[in-house]
Order: sequence, then C-alpha cells, then structure tokens
Amino acid sequence: MSKQELQVLTGCCTPISEAALDPAQAADGAAVFKALADPIRLRLMSIIASAGDEICVCDITPHFEVSGPTISHHLKVLREAGLVDCERRGTWVYYWPLPERLTWLSSLLSAPAAAGL
Amino acid sequence: MSKQELQVLTGCCTPISEAALDPAQAADGAAVFKALADPIRLRLMSIIASAGDEICVCDITPHFEVSGPTISHHLKVLREAGLVDCERRGTWVYYWPLPERLTWLSSLLSAPAAAGL
Repeated sequence: MSKQELQVLTGCCTPISEAALDPAQAADGAAVFKALADPIRLRLMSIIASAGDEICVCDITPHFEVSGPTISHHLKVLREAGLVDCERRGTWVYYWPLPERLTWLSSLLSAPAAAGL
Repeated sequence: MSKQELQVLTGCCTPISEAALDPAQAADGAAVFKALADPIRLRLMSIIASAGDEICVCDITPHFEVSGPTISHHLKVLREAGLVDCERRGTWVYYWPLPERLTWLSSLLSAPAAAGL
C-alpha cells in the first residue's frame, strides 16, 4: 500500500462500534494494525510518539538490544504505514510521529460515547 | 497469552503520545493489535461491535465468502485476544464485543488532547 493510498485513512472515521467496515476499509485498516502488531514496532512507535518532537535514530537504538539494521527495518514498516516520517541530516536520521494516523486508529476503535472526539 | 493475563490491559492507560511503552507492555499491546491485523478479523470485529447487542454466528457468516471453519478460526483469535466473547445456545453460537479492550486500544493511540476521554 502506498503512502498516497493510505491518505484515505486520515480524516475519517466512523467507529467500528457504530458501523461495520466494508472489505476495502477492513483491508486498509488491517494493514495499519499490522504495522503495530510487533512488540519492537509498537515500542518504537511509542518512543517516537512520546518524544514531544522529532527524535534522532541515535537516541532510539539504545533502547533496544537488537541490531541497527533490524531497527531500521521496523522503522521503515512504520513509515510505509504512514505512522511516522523521517529526514536524514548529515550522519543521522530524525523521526517524528504523524498523529493523524494514530488519531484515525483511535477513533476507529473508540466507544460510541467518545465518537467524534 | 491467556485471557487472564490480558486482563492487565484493561482499565489503563497512558497514551503512547505521552509515555513510551516498556518491553512487556509493548508485547502485550502488539498481541492485541495482531488480532486486528487481518482484514477478515477486523471486519468480523466491526460487525460484532456495531451489532448493538449480541449477534448470532449465523448472521455473521453470510457477510463473508470464506468457509465456516475459517470464520470460526478468526472468531477464536478475537476471543483469545479478549476482544469478543461468546456463548453457545442450541445450534448457534452468539458473539458480543468486550468494549473495555477496544477502549483500552483507543486510549493507547489517542492524541494528548484526547487523553483520558
């Protein structure tokens, strides 16, 4: 799924507690959940999302006991899912969260009382 | 992961936009996201969550073009993740959502401004 295609997932959505997803919506949503369905990626996402601002990959890797290339692979999956973005500056790559996608997932799973918040 | 172990995931939580997850929290959270990281399961979850009340498996299967045993397998994964529960009555099994788990996931992914809602 390209980042452009995933744009349709932002700015939505009706919670699943209010309306069933059609097959296309379910396929798109499942792809984003898949990006978070790994302990390393979910922890990476939380480190980037809670950093307050952008965070250097050099400040991310010390949190993990896996190799740099492994971290890079997982960051790429998060980026392709539209959950984070990044920019290389000199030696290091800096990451920041794309809150629209998290908000979309959050509202998709919200209870009816919280819909639209 | 047993249903009992997953109980710790309810009644929480600090959004990942506010605090990074520790490895154990990330492992638990990723396991629940994995249950939703499949198009059939996410659609099943939305059908059960939006039914308003419990729903007979006989009203679920017509939405899908896959076999009954395949649907049963995916429903079992959702049940083991603590997202739905069920009861057999006579010929049919009836499913209902467990909203605490959806609320937990929703707040985990919520933006800081929506935290605690």
